[in-house]
Amino acid sequence: MKAEIGGEIKNIRAIWFENGKTVMIDQRKLPGELVICSFGDCASVAEAIRNMTTRGAPSIGAAAAYAMCMASLNGEDLDKAAETVRNARPTANDLFYAVDFMLSELRAGKDPVESADRYAQITVDKCRLIGKYGAGLIKNGMKIMTHCNAGALATVDVGTALAPMRQARDDGKDFFVYVSETRPRLQGMQLTAWELGQEGISHRIIPDGASAYYMSKGVDMIITGADRIASNGDFANKIGTFDKAIAAKYFGIPFYVAAPVSTFDFGTPSGDKIVIEERSETEVTEMNGRLIAPEGSHALNPAFDVTPASLVTGFITEKGILKPGEIQTVKE
Amino acid sequence: MKAEIGGEIKNIRAIWFENGKTVMIDQRKLPGELVICSFGDCASVAEAIRNMTTRGAPSIGAAAAYAMCMASLNGEDLDKAAETVRNARPTANDLFYAVDFMLSELRAGKDPVESADRYAQITVDKCRLIGKYGAGLIKNGMKIMTHCNAGALATVDVGTALAPMRQARDDGKDFFVYVSETRPRLQGMQLTAWELGQEGISHRIIPDGASAYYMSKGVDMIITGADRIASNGDFANKIGTFDKAIAAKYFGIPFYVAAPVSTFDFGTPSGDKIVIEERSETEVTEMNGRLIAPEGSHALNPAFDVTPASLVTGFITEKGILKPGEIQTVKE
Repeated sequence: MKAEIGGEIKNIRAIWFENGKTVMIDQRKLPGELVICSFGDCASVAEAIRNMTTRGAPSIGAAAAYAMCMASLNGEDLDKAAETVRNARPTANDLFYAVDFMLSELRAGKDPVESADRYAQITVDKCRLIGKYGAGLIKNGMKIMTHCNAGALATVDVGTALAPMRQARDDGKDFFVYVSETRPRLQGMQLTAWELGQEGISHRIIPDGASAYYMSKGVDMIITGADRIASNGDFANKIGTFDKAIAAKYFGIPFYVAAPVSTFDFGTPSGDKIVIEERSETEVTEMNGRLIAPEGSHALNPAFDVTPASLVTGFITEKGILKPGEIQTVKE
Repeated sequence: MKAEIGGEIKNIRAIWFENGKTVMIDQRKLPGELVICSFGDCASVAEAIRNMTTRGAPSIGAAAAYAMCMASLNGEDLDKAAETVRNARPTANDLFYAVDFMLSELRAGKDPVESADRYAQITVDKCRLIGKYGAGLIKNGMKIMTHCNAGALATVDVGTALAPMRQARDDGKDFFVYVSETRPRLQGMQLTAWELGQEGISHRIIPDGASAYYMSKGVDMIITGADRIASNGDFANKIGTFDKAIAAKYFGIPFYVAAPVSTFDFGTPSGDKIVIEERSETEVTEMNGRLIAPEGSHALNPAFDVTPASLVTGFITEKGILKPGEIQTVKE
């Protein structure tokens, strides 16, 4: 992804290995400052996962791979290191997958840096393919709407929902993006608008409730990411996705979900089986540590909603664009 | 409306006349503090309208009536006073209507306080009738969703969308209200949740994007206010209303709009003729004066959206509940 560092536009990743250290963008400081941190041992990379210096399941996976790489370079006990990394965050499947991948590579005598870099590269390559397939949908002059951050920050580089936009821009296409701010944590306003701004892609932030208003004025397609896709095509994504999918259906606007095939959960038959995380109400009632709601009032804060497959036009994956009924064809 | 003042629950209005002064709740301080201000002359009441100490078209109308009342009591030139009040805010029709009402009353030799009180009382009486008709729709155990603030603060007392809830509570009914926070200005979180909290009506604040999620879990009806209703039943209301109306249709949930007949604009045939106010982008990109968006990024901030009549179940007015096709029957 492009990022302005010291007045120069550079191409960087959310996380990488350099001069014996694991280096990453501190996503907690965005969009106020672009801070690059580096960590010299496994425990401090694990801590960076835990405290959300890096976030987004694919980026967490890459961080876990680099954490194991650090452990190997420093001659640490690999089983203890794996334990430390696995305990960093409880839910991201990619984290556990990356630890197992690295244990198997390291025990086979592979070079730790080469293995971790390869893990990260596989993630990025999938995103580039998602970008390639998705960019075919984007035409000159289109207005696109997205929600939350399914960008390079979350996926080492390129992104999922933002991958087709990066590719279309590289292909010389001219288009505009409505970025819905994504309350309560504002990942749309704070991360997606930051990424698009760095890339020079034309966009405006809108309140989540302005979606139908702008769809009524003319939106050509909606692209979001997904956290988990059930085998019938129902999918969980950031709260507010469902509202946009319903409005898109009402207006007849194509609604696409960009995600690698690893997001399909063939063990979950339908969306009603997906458990929704309820997060702290203070994410809604406070801003920058200050109470913005009436004292003593309470809020509900579901992190995700589940959108039914019937509202999805297609899933943009590294294996092509699939209709909800075609998901089974990529089962591995 | 109920409000806790000095540890005691009192029944107060948003604005009233007491001991020779115009008294009002400072709505800019809510929900942090309940501050009651009083003003001894016309110009300072006009300034309180301008600086949004009071807001909501019916409350602004009452404030304008009391401003003219102050001018008369202080022996000021009535034409100059009328000019001062008319210049306080440009768009609220009630303001101009109230000034003309008071000029006619004062020139007919009516008592200024009695006339202004009567003006405010007419507003409150309409709200009580809206409450009476709307309460008939609310059943024990219902889950209701509302948006923005169409409460007592905006209408001197009782409210429009909140009137049926106050009446149903007085009738001993037990129900629950989802209050969507209403970005960017958070009138749902900061004013509606405050009013419901003071009334002891069970409620929770939700992010605007959580509407479809909670509708999918079971919502029995949606009630919002309206800023302007075209003669075909299309209506303008706070941005985010349209998204909820579309989702309500998708789930088959009744969608009601509570507003006095004076909100019907028979000179506007349909919603596409309603001009939407674009407000400052800093309402989206800043919170408590602090930038929360990427530096140099831009936001769009339409204050209202227009929901088509086809998504409205009924308009709850002081003359009964009207279907969109029945609006013409109340044309005066």
